[in-house]
Amino acid sequence: MPEVLILHPGEMGASLGYALKTKVNRAHWVSANRSESTHYRAGQSSMIPHGTLEEALDQVGIVISVCPPEHAVAVGNSVFESGFSGLFCDANAIAPSTARHHLESFGDRYVDGGIVGPPAYRQGTTRLYLSGAQATEVGRLFSGTAVDARVVDGDELSASAVKMCYAAYTKGTSAMLLAIRSLADAHGVSSAIHTEWDLSQPALWERSERTGLGTTRKAWRFAPEMREIAMSFSDAGLPSGFHEAAAEIYSRMASLKDSEPVATRLLAKQLRGE
Amino acid sequence: MPEVLILHPGEMGASLGYALKTKVNRAHWVSANRSESTHYRAGQSSMIPHGTLEEALDQVGIVISVCPPEHAVAVGNSVFESGFSGLFCDANAIAPSTARHHLESFGDRYVDGGIVGPPAYRQGTTRLYLSGAQATEVGRLFSGTAVDARVVDGDELSASAVKMCYAAYTKGTSAMLLAIRSLADAHGVSSAIHTEWDLSQPALWERSERTGLGTTRKAWRFAPEMREIAMSFSDAGLPSGFHEAAAEIYSRMASLKDSEPVATRLLAKQLRGE
Repeated sequence: MPEVLILHPGEMGASLGYALKTKVNRAHWVSANRSESTHYRAGQSSMIPHGTLEEALDQVGIVISVCPPEHAVAVGNSVFESGFSGLFCDANAIAPSTARHHLESFGDRYVDGGIVGPPAYRQGTTRLYLSGAQATEVGRLFSGTAVDARVVDGDELSASAVKMCYAAYTKGTSAMLLAIRSLADAHGVSSAIHTEWDLSQPALWERSERTGLGTTRKAWRFAPEMREIAMSFSDAGLPSGFHEAAAEIYSRMASLKDSEPVATRLLAKQLRGE
Repeated sequence: MPEVLILHPGEMGASLGYALKTKVNRAHWVSANRSESTHYRAGQSSMIPHGTLEEALDQVGIVISVCPPEHAVAVGNSVFESGFSGLFCDANAIAPSTARHHLESFGDRYVDGGIVGPPAYRQGTTRLYLSGAQATEVGRLFSGTAVDARVVDGDELSASAVKMCYAAYTKGTSAMLLAIRSLADAHGVSSAIHTEWDLSQPALWERSERTGLGTTRKAWRFAPEMREIAMSFSDAGLPSGFHEAAAEIYSRMASLKDSEPVATRLLAKQLRGE
């Protein structure tokens, strides 16, 4: 089994590192310029720190990139430019057309990935979709772990397409729901909508209540993901507006990154830009 | 009880006429330039035909407008310009800012409305939301019928706001779902999405299958409604893109008005504009 470098151990990346520790000798990471919480998570997953990317790349056969989507191309480029000769897997929420940059750099050594579910510490919660010529090499790393790796039929960039389609609905409808609650609030009809949804859209009001609380701290990183989805739609000849609007909603919440979770009704004014 | 003119007896309007026939002497309609199917529906609801709008207005104390949203302002203007002195209720899916045109014309004689649910032939399926100074006058017409009339708290235009918020989610997410299925089709990952949704988004695949069949013939009239919702968002300082995109999706299906219902997977290319 090849050793693996994870760039970087955020919440999701650290859970992949944790899964790998039973399967490879060591999962590695690059500690330069990373936050205290990243150090903590990498330590909890028994990952080996390296001072520089080059030093880390010397120790591994596979790199898995797990980072905010807006940094995905830069992370791939830094690995490629360092002359790395192993497999590069981007597991981020990026458009197939963004993933194509990696394919053009790494060719057959590029494995496309997409993660659905929360950080993977329990069986059955989280899928790692994979595509590309050597997708099974990356998938094999996770067999028997909490990460359910699945090779997707289709072309080299199918895994990113699965992630885009999946998050398009979940995070897209959450943003729409927050916007609708804000519109109802603007017109003073929240209570009428609550009553109507309880009659004809079971559980929707409760979902809308949870959505504010559940997205308060994550919205800052959802906005760039929504833009990748908007680009995926546009690349396919579909209207991009659903997810451009979702990006705008999440952008308006970005300042809440470090706040306590905020109830949906209390977000209403901020979402209207008031 | 005042007699009522319904402009016009489409599927929804005819069901209001049917509800009224037990409550008022007669529900009226204007038969000039209407289709054979409108004549048939009005007959089924025992509505009284009139050759001209003026003739009909002479017989009634209340007008209820039930028409495609893009004609709502013109219908209101034609009633106002004829010098009608009774109550005018617009029950269409229009933005509060569109309904404001009626309020400016009719003043206290304007009753804002919004219908949620299918044509009302059974108890418990359909609500008629009403707002404005004389909302209870219109609501009273329907007491004891299959139309559940509810006066909404808020301002004069709250009923339209309720309708916008409601349809924003139902028809907005249906359009998004059709677009996502089309994106999955474009990348050859429909089967992977089906499997993932069955794992983590129960019933979503089945809903997406029904959405194509259920919207084929109605999409032409959903597009203008989505534009009213987009305007409602924009008027409130919220991003309009969700429903501009939904309008685009439904516009691309408008040619299917008279076709047999089309399965979602068969709509995929048409939705991408191919």
